[in-house]
Amino acid sequence: MTSERSDHAPGSTASLRAANQRRVLDVLRSTTDGEAATVFTQAELARATGLARATVSNIVRDLGQAGLVDTEAGSGRRGSAVRLSEGAGIVAGVDFGHSHLAVAIGDLTGRVLAEERRAIPPEFPHEEALALAVAMTDELRPAGAALRHVGLGLPAPVTDGVVQSAAIFPGWRNVDARTVGSEAFGSPVDVENDANLGALAEHRIGEGRGTDSSVFVKISSGVGAGIILRNELFQGTAGSAGEIGHLTFDEQGPLCRCGSRGCLETYTSVQAVQGLLASQLPGASLDEIIATAETGDVLARRALEDAGLHLGWGLAAVVNLMNPSVVVIGGDMARAGELLLESVRTGLRRHALDTLALTPVVASRLGERASLLGAALLAAERTELLVD
Amino acid sequence: MTSERSDHAPGSTASLRAANQRRVLDVLRSTTDGEAATVFTQAELARATGLARATVSNIVRDLGQAGLVDTEAGSGRRGSAVRLSEGAGIVAGVDFGHSHLAVAIGDLTGRVLAEERRAIPPEFPHEEALALAVAMTDELRPAGAALRHVGLGLPAPVTDGVVQSAAIFPGWRNVDARTVGSEAFGSPVDVENDANLGALAEHRIGEGRGTDSSVFVKISSGVGAGIILRNELFQGTAGSAGEIGHLTFDEQGPLCRCGSRGCLETYTSVQAVQGLLASQLPGASLDEIIATAETGDVLARRALEDAGLHLGWGLAAVVNLMNPSVVVIGGDMARAGELLLESVRTGLRRHALDTLALTPVVASRLGERASLLGAALLAAERTELLVD
Repeated sequence: MTSERSDHAPGSTASLRAANQRRVLDVLRSTTDGEAATVFTQAELARATGLARATVSNIVRDLGQAGLVDTEAGSGRRGSAVRLSEGAGIVAGVDFGHSHLAVAIGDLTGRVLAEERRAIPPEFPHEEALALAVAMTDELRPAGAALRHVGLGLPAPVTDGVVQSAAIFPGWRNVDARTVGSEAFGSPVDVENDANLGALAEHRIGEGRGTDSSVFVKISSGVGAGIILRNELFQGTAGSAGEIGHLTFDEQGPLCRCGSRGCLETYTSVQAVQGLLASQLPGASLDEIIATAETGDVLARRALEDAGLHLGWGLAAVVNLMNPSVVVIGGDMARAGELLLESVRTGLRRHALDTLALTPVVASRLGERASLLGAALLAAERTELLVD
Repeated sequence: MTSERSDHAPGSTASLRAANQRRVLDVLRSTTDGEAATVFTQAELARATGLARATVSNIVRDLGQAGLVDTEAGSGRRGSAVRLSEGAGIVAGVDFGHSHLAVAIGDLTGRVLAEERRAIPPEFPHEEALALAVAMTDELRPAGAALRHVGLGLPAPVTDGVVQSAAIFPGWRNVDARTVGSEAFGSPVDVENDANLGALAEHRIGEGRGTDSSVFVKISSGVGAGIILRNELFQGTAGSAGEIGHLTFDEQGPLCRCGSRGCLETYTSVQAVQGLLASQLPGASLDEIIATAETGDVLARRALEDAGLHLGWGLAAVVNLMNPSVVVIGGDMARAGELLLESVRTGLRRHALDTLALTPVVASRLGERASLLGAALLAAERTELLVD
């Protein structure tokens, strides 16, 4: 992605040097399970990048002079130890929800250094939301640290940084979030759908780690999916990929806010489960329904089970069409755990091809922080670090 | 893909040279609507590759000495004209079906020079099928032309060159088609599912041309899809992506050969349409059904329409999840043309998100040759052309 921004002609020695610098930086900022930025010996960098030791040594010298890496005298023949410098700057991840705003400050590996989550009123205007996010970022960031990039997550379809859907996220309707975000933060901003960010986080540091393709399904009031293919976020031609919530199961089923009927969302969202139990557990919150199910209540268990069977049916379409390595379930409904997942796997087995029916389905490891962590990772991955 | 086979260390001058050679060769073998291998001036090659004129000149000289390109004295300052040499060798595409075997000879752009299609008996053993394919290739190939690569299409799921499904293609059950194919042809062989090859052909030279993502759905006795994302064939983790035929629409629907019920294939395959009309048009072939529908017969029209509505419903899942630029309908059922496609678009509109419901759905431009042309293109794209 960032390579397209390079001014170097392809095939030139300068572009070779830039590509080699990037290769070293990408190793240095590869994430590490939430630990501090990893220290590499120059020998390790040479092995990880495939570059010659002498080339690595020159690159490390240039990056050190530019303040991007710190080096420590090494132990003999393996060369000095290198790590991304704390002075290289920070990134911010911002997760805007319907009723919350969360901000995380991260280093250039995407590791979170500090974070905060606040409740916001419904239909909060985007100008106020952005101003609050900037203020929270300023409180959290270390004094003097340069903010290199911001990743911004929104619970809506996003195409080229612009919020597409009218109905789904009123305060941001048709807003060019990338432009207004860049102006508010004074840094480059990338904008993504929140399910896509959750997918990125689970793929890099959660349950999708180590695979080359994973799907993250976020189930709260809405139902959406983020798709990682070949280790990259996949958005589709118009940025609309992953709309699992609007797969149709019954064309005579309940009307959906999208204008169709019998969509997955009408069977498996939090509201759908609450609706099923409207007479038996009127006004119950999701957590109350889960608690009731855990006592063995057959009605609450059945409602979660039916949501899970439909979700498994929807996942069968995902695995039949895209054959991912793993499916991760997140969002509020994931708190139901095995009460939901057991029937999800049953639905998947009933409806997927036999060779695909055992695709692992697991609960999110990152919980409600998934989209926020993904926003910080996105910001780190999109940060332009090349030196001249 | 092929770059992984290179012995050059990444980041070295040798690998830069190899990458630049590849860049020039990839331009020279870019396909051209079925015309002869395109002639480029060196100035055009420099522009298309972004390389310096002097670099292009050196590369063309090296490639010429290796016999891979022909040069002609150019008209003055634009430098000599260059094209892929006919002496650089040929590729073969082979399309094995349940009742046919087709072979195409192509140049290194994937352009077909000669082709032949023959009927074969059902359950033809793979050894005999391969021997026949080799014999047909030998008849078609120009005397003395080196066979550089073979692309082989099979109507079955294929993982790492091995036929996966027991039920679907009996003569090839569990056969390592890449290995036995390489032995039979004495050339490197790549194996792909036939719908994937149709997708590649439509994307490169058919209705998907000019987009970055397209889906090809092949509807004959079976129903399968090939998916092109970011201009590359997408196969999924285990090579099983694109199984649109086994999306479930009614869990109480007709039993499907896959072991599930109410799969798309049970509503939209040729046999499904024939089955609907079993009492009204007993024993009618698909073409007889289409001809009857064209006379205005309401029963035949309704059978095609219902197949189309279900297909549109299935495509809604494809566009909601993957948001491709275009969907191309191929296989035998595509011969029904608008009698099918009109209801396909209706089904899509009813079941896809409104922003995705107008994704274009068109009939294959390449017809029954799609998989064969894709096999030749695959062979050309996988041919290793690097010189030292």
